[in-house]
Amino acid sequence: MRQSQLFGRTLRESPKEAELVSHELSLRAGLIRQLAAGIYSYLPLGWRVLQKIEMIMREEMAAAGCQELSMPVVQPAELWQKTNRWYDIGSELVRFKDRTGRDLVLAMTHEEVATDIVRREIRSYRQLPFSFFHIQTKFRDEPRSRGGLMRVREFTMKDAYSFHADLATQEGFYQEMMQAYFNIFRRCGIEVLAVQSDVGMMGGTEAHEFMLVADSGEDAILVCSGCDYSANMEIATMDKGLEEEAEPPGELKEVATPDTPTIEGLARFLGMPKHKMAKVVLYWGDDHLVMSLIRGDLEVNEVKLANVLRCPNLRLAADGEIAAAGLVAGYVSPVGVEGVQVVVDDTIPSSRNLVSGANRAGFHLKNVNCGRDFQPDIVADIAATQAGGRCLQCGGRLELKRCFEVGNIFRLGTKYSQALGATYLDEKGKEHPIVMGSYGIGTGRLMASIIEVHNDDKGIIWPPSVAPFHCHVVALGLDKPEVSATAEGVCSELRDCGYEVLYDDREESAGVKFNDADLIGIPVRVTVSERNVRKDQVELKLRWEGQAERTGRSALLEAVERLLGTPGAMGDPP
Amino acid sequence: MRQSQLFGRTLRESPKEAELVSHELSLRAGLIRQLAAGIYSYLPLGWRVLQKIEMIMREEMAAAGCQELSMPVVQPAELWQKTNRWYDIGSELVRFKDRTGRDLVLAMTHEEVATDIVRREIRSYRQLPFSFFHIQTKFRDEPRSRGGLMRVREFTMKDAYSFHADLATQEGFYQEMMQAYFNIFRRCGIEVLAVQSDVGMMGGTEAHEFMLVADSGEDAILVCSGCDYSANMEIATMDKGLEEEAEPPGELKEVATPDTPTIEGLARFLGMPKHKMAKVVLYWGDDHLVMSLIRGDLEVNEVKLANVLRCPNLRLAADGEIAAAGLVAGYVSPVGVEGVQVVVDDTIPSSRNLVSGANRAGFHLKNVNCGRDFQPDIVADIAATQAGGRCLQCGGRLELKRCFEVGNIFRLGTKYSQALGATYLDEKGKEHPIVMGSYGIGTGRLMASIIEVHNDDKGIIWPPSVAPFHCHVVALGLDKPEVSATAEGVCSELRDCGYEVLYDDREESAGVKFNDADLIGIPVRVTVSERNVRKDQVELKLRWEGQAERTGRSALLEAVERLLGTPGAMGDPP
Repeated sequence: MRQSQLFGRTLRESPKEAELVSHELSLRAGLIRQLAAGIYSYLPLGWRVLQKIEMIMREEMAAAGCQELSMPVVQPAELWQKTNRWYDIGSELVRFKDRTGRDLVLAMTHEEVATDIVRREIRSYRQLPFSFFHIQTKFRDEPRSRGGLMRVREFTMKDAYSFHADLATQEGFYQEMMQAYFNIFRRCGIEVLAVQSDVGMMGGTEAHEFMLVADSGEDAILVCSGCDYSANMEIATMDKGLEEEAEPPGELKEVATPDTPTIEGLARFLGMPKHKMAKVVLYWGDDHLVMSLIRGDLEVNEVKLANVLRCPNLRLAADGEIAAAGLVAGYVSPVGVEGVQVVVDDTIPSSRNLVSGANRAGFHLKNVNCGRDFQPDIVADIAATQAGGRCLQCGGRLELKRCFEVGNIFRLGTKYSQALGATYLDEKGKEHPIVMGSYGIGTGRLMASIIEVHNDDKGIIWPPSVAPFHCHVVALGLDKPEVSATAEGVCSELRDCGYEVLYDDREESAGVKFNDADLIGIPVRVTVSERNVRKDQVELKLRWEGQAERTGRSALLEAVERLLGTPGAMGDPP
Repeated sequence: MRQSQLFGRTLRESPKEAELVSHELSLRAGLIRQLAAGIYSYLPLGWRVLQKIEMIMREEMAAAGCQELSMPVVQPAELWQKTNRWYDIGSELVRFKDRTGRDLVLAMTHEEVATDIVRREIRSYRQLPFSFFHIQTKFRDEPRSRGGLMRVREFTMKDAYSFHADLATQEGFYQEMMQAYFNIFRRCGIEVLAVQSDVGMMGGTEAHEFMLVADSGEDAILVCSGCDYSANMEIATMDKGLEEEAEPPGELKEVATPDTPTIEGLARFLGMPKHKMAKVVLYWGDDHLVMSLIRGDLEVNEVKLANVLRCPNLRLAADGEIAAAGLVAGYVSPVGVEGVQVVVDDTIPSSRNLVSGANRAGFHLKNVNCGRDFQPDIVADIAATQAGGRCLQCGGRLELKRCFEVGNIFRLGTKYSQALGATYLDEKGKEHPIVMGSYGIGTGRLMASIIEVHNDDKGIIWPPSVAPFHCHVVALGLDKPEVSATAEGVCSELRDCGYEVLYDDREESAGVKFNDADLIGIPVRVTVSERNVRKDQVELKLRWEGQAERTGRSALLEAVERLLGTPGAMGDPP
């Protein structure tokens, strides 16, 4: 490819909207252009990278026995209504009507359609297990799409779906897919952690996220310094000290505590530690008030609470909702409360003589004991796990790491197959719902993640496996016919050996050409200049090394092979 | 690929909704499944075919110097408003609002976005010409989606866009793309005609459609039996006899013609030929009544009329609209009419002494002469060209052929670049709008077209270039270990040589297996049976030949190569 004809300019200036380095570099190097908030076009350079990423995905999916097919972007609402996601998902899900008034949605994922297709093809246990995947456009109307390809509204995803007779047979496949995912990320040049994660709107029994650790990451995980435990903040657990306190229960009494609506103020006023307080936070479920109680040194994790309640639309209660229930904000008490669902963290029943509100402004109750003074509706772990907490597995310290989520896998159980009637008959003719899994990687987000960790202050440093081209032939002094003749010769020689070559044939200065080469980040730069040509030499430089080296013209191929590997077996990413 | 694991069943019965053979066979062979009206999933077999078609497209586009990129499916309405298509296109264009209330559309084509991207990258004539393409999902809310993949709502299209400084430099590229299209269709095994066509909602100056001639075709074209003229019915011309009639103009007079609201009745009543009548048809433009006049032996072509009026929403006038203008339906006269736009076919000014309505029920005017008795607002060719008409180029007979449209190309002129401000500066620093072209082929429709012409009563007969697999190894008697061992050996040997192999390892009867093989239509069938294995032979059969042949096991590869060509250079389609 001649660079003079390549569509898409490089940009000198850093676009002001770019916060992440991957965003900045993918705009500056001419990989992508924004069409609207969270909606991008891929220019030829970016598209080449994406195609290579997709090819790696296809190879690893095929190796895992996963068949490729293609499911539509526009889908009937009916399927989403049957699985309830039509109601559970907010305005991220784009809904519209067709000309006849039928409700349609834009796919944000494909569980419904995958299940519907399988429902029509599968009858017997003999047809199980199997899996398929596709690489398809999706749309999710994110409220804050930003960060370039890291969080977009329109995106392309490789999503796979698996179908097994039971959880036991699925287990091995889930591990295989996890390994296939590690292979994909490794081949794309990034190292990831698989962490336990919340199943969220997907439902199901178990899920893992693949996390690329990076300081610029928008997500956070907790990783144990002592063992292999790691988890998404949303579901991470820690040792909260649940052994029952020995202290005998004291007598319940009301005390005046003026101006102490916060735990901090209350602890200071009473001269007591925060873990002796019972902190109340009020939420609104679908149609009722939820009172959460947690030990005063901890915080409620809303995702855990929403999961416990099976209420995806949980939100903080409004002042009016609190007052309407006869509760006094800042001094709410679980004692004597009625018509409110009470959910307590598992630290509450094991604590003795807590201080809680008296449901009267400026007053609290001392010696509140769960079970004696009030009955919780639900006891569960609803605490946010914090960095510095102790690992439940080994007692080690949990460390917080910033990261980007680059993929996720879910054991869906039978949520979708039951809702849509995808069943099979076993050996005895008995009907069972099919056990499903789903496995997704966003292609554009993976591209951005690669850039996020493979760059320097001059630009991108592509791993050879996903580089838009393998070699960048830069000709300097094109007014000299021997320079252009040599450069074209070098290009043909490399191409004939299977290397992909971008040829900078533009009439630009050496400075502009080298800057663009560093920005675009092709692994090997081959410089052809008048001086080199006179000496029958070319200059070679690996993008990730500081020094260029000269080599005889005739030894070029050998040198490129040494630096990069053969086109079929490129060396490991830098 | 083991057929026992292939996802997607073959169907014995012909699905009742299938009218076209391609629809029936693509469902029965398990290539596609319908999700909703006009929305299909591709199962693995169909997806493999589509991937091959796309690869052929990529190769031919690359050979024409066209770069691949990718533009989004969801697009801001603003761009479509600027080009007016937001207003000109009816409910085929899906519109919806995002969570912030911004209007968005689903791409039904990509001229707007292509122009917008180019507008931001191109400044100078030095950057021209160039072209790019993508293969992307589109959605068009067709009122009557039917015929399987022939007319769908969600579809994938390869669409290319070209950008030139002027019409002259564009001319050669337009011819190159036409050739690239012929190459694509030929390599996919279908022969097409390129016919002149209406530019329709695309606008621009010239357009061609690529037509696959087939009796089942939903479109019609006219082809001259004497020369190379061919055209879509919508724009075809013919020799209507436009030489001015010598007859002197007679005196205008009203005659009683009771019960003669039709041309047929009137001609019979007056005993005059139909070509002496002036036929009136009334239409409603965007906001006014349009009176069209044409010689009584001809019919108005509404597409031509809409183009002349630049009114894409033209429709027949309603009775109320006619009456409100003071006109008498069935007896409308162009004489003395006011406040109505009068468009006459070019046959009208050259005709003498026509009969037209008197705008009074039961009466007509004799000796009506255009120019003397009324003044038309527009004179143009608005006549429908019919089979049997004479070719304007050579006088030959025009013949009607049924066909499927499988691609189209447009010289768009500057319609989009002017509307969206995509301009360049010439050598002298003067600004000009870029001259554009667009070039599209639907991938699924092409797949259906291939099936439409390559089939017999047993199933599909794939051209090797697009077949889902090259060889179908059918093992009979799998309970014998020597059969399965030989079959697996044959599969490996073929695969190692680069052939793609589907291995029928199912426990089914020979009848079921052969029927499925014929239905799926893979070019070479290799049968491994107990009898063959004993004789150290295999049986080979080309899908398009009646007879199977036996060959020694060791001569298998040679025989396949002879029948099919090497994997890199497959023989011509049957």
